[in-house]
Amino acid sequence: MTAYRTLDPEGVKHFLAARRDLAERLGGEAQDWTVREVSDGNLNLVFLVFGPSGTLCVKQSLPHVRVDPDWKMPLDRTAFEAAWLRRIEPLAPGLTPAFLDFDPEQFVLTMECLNGFVTLREALSKGADPIAPSRILGGFVARSAFLTSYFAQPFEAVAPDLAFFSGNTTLTRITVDLVLTDPYREHPRNHWLPALDADVAAMRADPRIIARIGALQERFLTTPQALLHGDLHSGSIMISDRDVRVIDGEFSLYGPIGFDCGLYLAHLAVAHAATNDVARKEALTAAIRTFWRTFCSDFLYLWKTQANGADLYTPTTFSNAPHELDTLRAHFISGVFHDAAGFAAAEIVRRLIGYAQTSDFDHIQDEQSKADRQRVALSFACDLLRDAPADIDAFTERLRQDTDLPSTTSPETT
Amino acid sequence: MTAYRTLDPEGVKHFLAARRDLAERLGGEAQDWTVREVSDGNLNLVFLVFGPSGTLCVKQSLPHVRVDPDWKMPLDRTAFEAAWLRRIEPLAPGLTPAFLDFDPEQFVLTMECLNGFVTLREALSKGADPIAPSRILGGFVARSAFLTSYFAQPFEAVAPDLAFFSGNTTLTRITVDLVLTDPYREHPRNHWLPALDADVAAMRADPRIIARIGALQERFLTTPQALLHGDLHSGSIMISDRDVRVIDGEFSLYGPIGFDCGLYLAHLAVAHAATNDVARKEALTAAIRTFWRTFCSDFLYLWKTQANGADLYTPTTFSNAPHELDTLRAHFISGVFHDAAGFAAAEIVRRLIGYAQTSDFDHIQDEQSKADRQRVALSFACDLLRDAPADIDAFTERLRQDTDLPSTTSPETT
Ligand SMILES: Nc1ncnc2c1ncn2[C@@H]1O[C@H](COP(=O)(O)OP(=O)(O)OP(=O)(O)O)[C@@H](O)[C@H]1O
Ligand SMILES: Nc1ncnc2c1ncn2[C@@H]1O[C@H](COP(=O)(O)OP(=O)(O)OP(=O)(O)O)[C@@H](O)[C@H]1O
Repeated sequence: MTAYRTLDPEGVKHFLAARRDLAERLGGEAQDWTVREVSDGNLNLVFLVFGPSGTLCVKQSLPHVRVDPDWKMPLDRTAFEAAWLRRIEPLAPGLTPAFLDFDPEQFVLTMECLNGFVTLREALSKGADPIAPSRILGGFVARSAFLTSYFAQPFEAVAPDLAFFSGNTTLTRITVDLVLTDPYREHPRNHWLPALDADVAAMRADPRIIARIGALQERFLTTPQALLHGDLHSGSIMISDRDVRVIDGEFSLYGPIGFDCGLYLAHLAVAHAATNDVARKEALTAAIRTFWRTFCSDFLYLWKTQANGADLYTPTTFSNAPHELDTLRAHFISGVFHDAAGFAAAEIVRRLIGYAQTSDFDHIQDEQSKADRQRVALSFACDLLRDAPADIDAFTERLRQDTDLPSTTSPETT
Repeated sequence: MTAYRTLDPEGVKHFLAARRDLAERLGGEAQDWTVREVSDGNLNLVFLVFGPSGTLCVKQSLPHVRVDPDWKMPLDRTAFEAAWLRRIEPLAPGLTPAFLDFDPEQFVLTMECLNGFVTLREALSKGADPIAPSRILGGFVARSAFLTSYFAQPFEAVAPDLAFFSGNTTLTRITVDLVLTDPYREHPRNHWLPALDADVAAMRADPRIIARIGALQERFLTTPQALLHGDLHSGSIMISDRDVRVIDGEFSLYGPIGFDCGLYLAHLAVAHAATNDVARKEALTAAIRTFWRTFCSDFLYLWKTQANGADLYTPTTFSNAPHELDTLRAHFISGVFHDAAGFAAAEIVRRLIGYAQTSDFDHIQDEQSKADRQRVALSFACDLLRDAPADIDAFTERLRQDTDLPSTTSPETT
């Protein structure tokens, strides 16, 4: 038992040199390795390590939030990320970094280094095509959700994972507070542009919005449909010219599938609201539809072909009711959409007025223009919460209408 | 570590003599104790032990189903019963036997012996008043469900219990198969009077019934609202002149609160269908309403007064939407009722045509009369599954209509 110590680049070399399998992947000796810290998230340390014959990525939890050392936090979050990666990697081959090692004393996860990848957030901000990765992500959520759900296996196979991931209370608390609670109450973690004061006050005073947030809180905590990623925003996705990988599963938990879908949709919608380039808006709209359609068709395909041994909605039980089976499946997917639209709205709200805000509006210099664009994003979210859209077409149509700023708005550089 | 051995009366004495605290409750020495086996359930051994100064009840799991030694079963079910008892006893004081000891090697639970109590099933079959115990049971379900739910505490307090009880896979499998699956498919465990053949075939061929059963299966496995008893029929309740106690929590799991409510309602409804005594039917109808009304008012009262520290539906979040908070609470209770009516129906069906049948019809000698009464019970259940009743009044009204046998039916002794 070695006491936990926070790694620095030298510490990373020591750590890897002591682990033969990992050291062999790098080749040579510790003095031949280069270590680069790339931590850019809020929570953890991330190092990339380059050796003569290979590379590695090393991630370690800190005993506090990385960007706020006063906010203390247990170390176990990399244990949940490691467990998530080991569970999901075989279900969605080639769509995560390869898991290599987890050290439960140092809380260090070692995984494949994604060379030549950037985060989807960065790629999108530079104008990358959003459609192709959205198709892959729709398939990823369908596979990882379906294959960890009660629709794919007997409940006995779900029980150990449900039990284990319910222990991920630290990061679930972050979601419950930062995403689903704080934006709707006074809290020192909230902040926003003064020009949005009236909008925030109106949102909080709207009983329909509060009621929907309440219902979403309940869905989040009491609907363990599948193992979720739990933080599927564009910073948790890395892309290269040809590939997409989902990283950072430390928020993983059993929950409503619409939560993962909603977070992804939220970030596309925010990017849409943040630009006034019409072609870009169209590409992002197409990406939203592509994500959702791929999710639906892949999920339904898996349901029809890979439900062996499951307890729920089995073809045997439904042998006299095949039509009802189709109806129930469609009803389930509609429920996922309903959840997704709600959670997307909550994610948009929190990225505008909560603790960890989106960088999508950072390119807008003029504060008035920035506030105008944030206002339309907020009003789209409030609209979704007030009155749930029936389907993805209604969702994108509202996005178009709500974020179509009047032409009097001063143009900004995109 | 002592290897597991099945107890007999002598073994019970040995077991208790070796445990000072327990032996002292009985007083005297082992030779002064009387042991009486009272096992009458399907699964376990139960012994009552009488000593000069006290009594005990000793329950041990067998490595198989008690009434079917070929049906092998893990021993851990008394561990879940013990955990349930320890969790629920302080939440519903005086409504369970007192927990005294659990031996995890012998799988022996020792608890207070309920002297002068009989099962509610036995009491009802002898004409006992069903209303007073139903009021107490409504309060019991309200307290045990509310106080273990996300409405009463932060989710971090729920997580360890959710994790632990999700391990109760053996008995959850019994529920999934025997209650929610087998009756709707060919299975050697099913059996029924030949006169019901056409009714069973019609039930299985009805797509609406199959669809509702499918939805109930999903609710059961993916709606962890509260810690359930999991088998709350009249044989899991003991009553004396003045007291009610809930026993036998070995099926406990996190699930939809309507499951506990539904099982209790089912057994009152079956008793109603099994008698043709009008006054008795009225008393049972009143008991059904009393149970449900007490559950609702107690649950809502707790929600308004004991929700401190919870994450869901907090008065702080809803300070601008008090009316919506009331609406959401009422909506939640309606959802519990909807579940309860469905699970009640499933329980009635399985007690008529599945593995472990009810004894309520045993007093009817004439097979035709018996089949007629079972048929009305079955048709009431099918009616509930086909078309959900809106509220408890609709539930009891249908029970009255569906089980009101035409007067041509041959009378039987009650
Ligand atoms: N396997 C990898 N290969 C290459 N780079 C990676 C890898 N994993 C993470 N990174 C880089 O490290 C950065 C931080 O990683 P990650 O998002 O997992 O950290 P985090 O602190 O948990 O973030 P958050 O606060 O969003 O939870 C990523 O943005 C990415 O640039
Ligand atoms: N604490 C107690 N005091 C007195 N008698 C008890 C007590 N607990 C159980 N009994 C008696 O033992 C019988 C069997 O108990 P119980 O229902 O717990 O057993 P079981 O085998 O688990 O039943 P099931 O098959 O319904 O799960 C009861 O019907 C009751 O008569």
